[in-house]
Amino acid sequence: MLDALISAEILRTGVESIITLVPESRFRISENGLTSRAVDPANVAMVSLELKKDAFDSFSATESEAGVDVSKLYEILKMAKKGDTVELLVDEDRGKLEIRFSGLKYSYNLIDPSAIRKEPKVPNLDLPARITMKSEDFKKAIMAGEKISDHVVLRTDEDNFYIEAEGDTDRIVFSLSKAELIDFTPSNARSMFSIDYLKEFVKPISRSEAVTIHLGTDYPARFEFDISGGKGKVEYLLAPRIESE
Amino acid sequence: MLDALISAEILRTGVESIITLVPESRFRISENGLTSRAVDPANVAMVSLELKKDAFDSFSATESEAGVDVSKLYEILKMAKKGDTVELLVDEDRGKLEIRFSGLKYSYNLIDPSAIRKEPKVPNLDLPARITMKSEDFKKAIMAGEKISDHVVLRTDEDNFYIEAEGDTDRIVFSLSKAELIDFTPSNARSMFSIDYLKEFVKPISRSEAVTIHLGTDYPARFEFDISGGKGKVEYLLAPRIESE
Amino acid sequence: MLDALISAEILRTGVESIITLVPESRFRISENGLTSRAVDPANVAMVSLELKKDAFDSFSATESEAGVDVSKLYEILKMAKKGDTVELLVDEDRGKLEIRFSGLKYSYNLIDPSAIRKEPKVPNLDLPARITMKSEDFKKAIMAGEKISDHVVLRTDEDNFYIEAEGDTDRIVFSLSKAELIDFTPSNARSMFSIDYLKEFVKPISRSEAVTIHLGTDYPARFEFDISGGKGKVEYLLAPRIESE
Repeated sequence: MLDALISAEILRTGVESIITLVPESRFRISENGLTSRAVDPANVAMVSLELKKDAFDSFSATESEAGVDVSKLYEILKMAKKGDTVELLVDEDRGKLEIRFSGLKYSYNLIDPSAIRKEPKVPNLDLPARITMKSEDFKKAIMAGEKISDHVVLRTDEDNFYIEAEGDTDRIVFSLSKAELIDFTPSNARSMFSIDYLKEFVKPISRSEAVTIHLGTDYPARFEFDISGGKGKVEYLLAPRIESE
Repeated sequence: MLDALISAEILRTGVESIITLVPESRFRISENGLTSRAVDPANVAMVSLELKKDAFDSFSATESEAGVDVSKLYEILKMAKKGDTVELLVDEDRGKLEIRFSGLKYSYNLIDPSAIRKEPKVPNLDLPARITMKSEDFKKAIMAGEKISDHVVLRTDEDNFYIEAEGDTDRIVFSLSKAELIDFTPSNARSMFSIDYLKEFVKPISRSEAVTIHLGTDYPARFEFDISGGKGKVEYLLAPRIESE
Repeated sequence: MLDALISAEILRTGVESIITLVPESRFRISENGLTSRAVDPANVAMVSLELKKDAFDSFSATESEAGVDVSKLYEILKMAKKGDTVELLVDEDRGKLEIRFSGLKYSYNLIDPSAIRKEPKVPNLDLPARITMKSEDFKKAIMAGEKISDHVVLRTDEDNFYIEAEGDTDRIVFSLSKAELIDFTPSNARSMFSIDYLKEFVKPISRSEAVTIHLGTDYPARFEFDISGGKGKVEYLLAPRIESE
């Protein structure tokens, strides 16, 4: 059971980070906050959302699990205005989720959690390079890469981070030096990823100032960003594409 | 015959209120102003537009009736900029409507009024509840209802006004208390309406601060709003949908 | 060979003026600047672009000719922000064009100039009327004409300039008197043109304050506008449509 007040913007960003991969997910509710984790149908990407108790203006919960149509929830939250506070009620006993803001009450059925694909385990990954960059730089690079290819290479050397895309006769390289990055743990790492997924990640990432990327070689990468200064947190794990050359 | 100057915005809102239902309508011109009334092809909704002489910056008219392609007129008026004044000339003798603003002169043929469906009589309706609310609240409720259904219930009790929509497994209730309404004559009223029509009404209604709804039970409702502080007036009458349960 | 710095906006407007007619064109590079000229596949319109050395923040060039996929170049330039400066490198020896701005390096193959349609000769035209008007007026007239027809008549008499469009039962006349024009060399001229082409011209023209039209009777017209206060210049030549009546 959850009965909480939260800024519509914070909740919307959290829900948005999930619907980039799946339309339905399990909400795990505890006295520490709300978490959700899901894998996309193609098994290529995983999202972990955490909204700490701190992220809520008021928070009353008992430990439980609820299946939520996050896609519908997002549609409703899009109607909230900047600054709106939302009341979120998750009631497994009645099988209902209710959300209220500015005169509007939206209620709908919870989904049996067992009908939703099981939560994935988070694999243990050793990712040597860590890059923290401005979200708008990340967005710019992905949008540029998309113009000429359906995949990009993320790469680091000792001094720079590169996002590279290659078309039939053209090539885009977006590079940021150590000084242009917010934070940088250098290493020689290089993996290739599908732009379709990265483009989806860009949407919620753009609501944060910065994104941190953990990168290895021909290995999954992890993309992390904060919601509302650390009150919430999102992690994407994305499998690499195999380079065939 | 009509030869008049009018703010492009006022005329555009008036014309917009008609084209939500029909592409052609009859303009009734008298020394008191311009009126038009039309019913949509499905006989579900009626619009009455009145632009008083006061709504015009200059007004010279003789009593007459003209058939006007309001859909075309709206397209042209969309090109006017905020603050533009429009010269409107309706000349039945020449069979022409002319409109001029900022260097542009648009002229086109009037339609034989007898070729346009006859003006409806306004039925006498006894509608006990009257709700005056902010246009933006009305818009919000209709847009929310549209997400899950193709019809909404408008309902009042002694203390509140409700707009309700029901989907397969979900439900939206938008409620405003007496204190949140601009004006309220309470009663127990309840009728169901098609969202497709209400969505169309929302467009011109949004150009006004407030809308007044007259409501009965399983009965048509009347939606009224002012143009430019009462210089013009629009009334929609909308037939209820029969609830089958 | 060209190695130059230029405002992204200036280069984008120049490239935009070409892609309205063709996706590929020849860049002629000399120590005086960069020029390009192209005819559309239907042989109806010609564009001449000139970016003088002055238009560049730094300019180092040797006389040469390069085939450029201007359509791709425009896509990349759209990503630049207002105020960005672009480094443009055209290297025929390596067969590469490179463009750099804010961390992004885009490189792609030049096209063999001989594979691009030969540059047209500019015909010598005697066009008696010359009209200089605000770009926004030109845009307004073309957008209005488009609502009712696929062609417009451009016409001058001793005192006015007219842009006229005729539909089945309607007619739009946009007229500007001598006093409303920026500059006017009157004459009796009248030619009809396709709106599809004029609409395309409107896009780059709108980035300039004014456009100058040279007009004859049943003759091609010339449309000229400046980029960045005369540092660059674009000329369109447009063949008339034959009036059949």
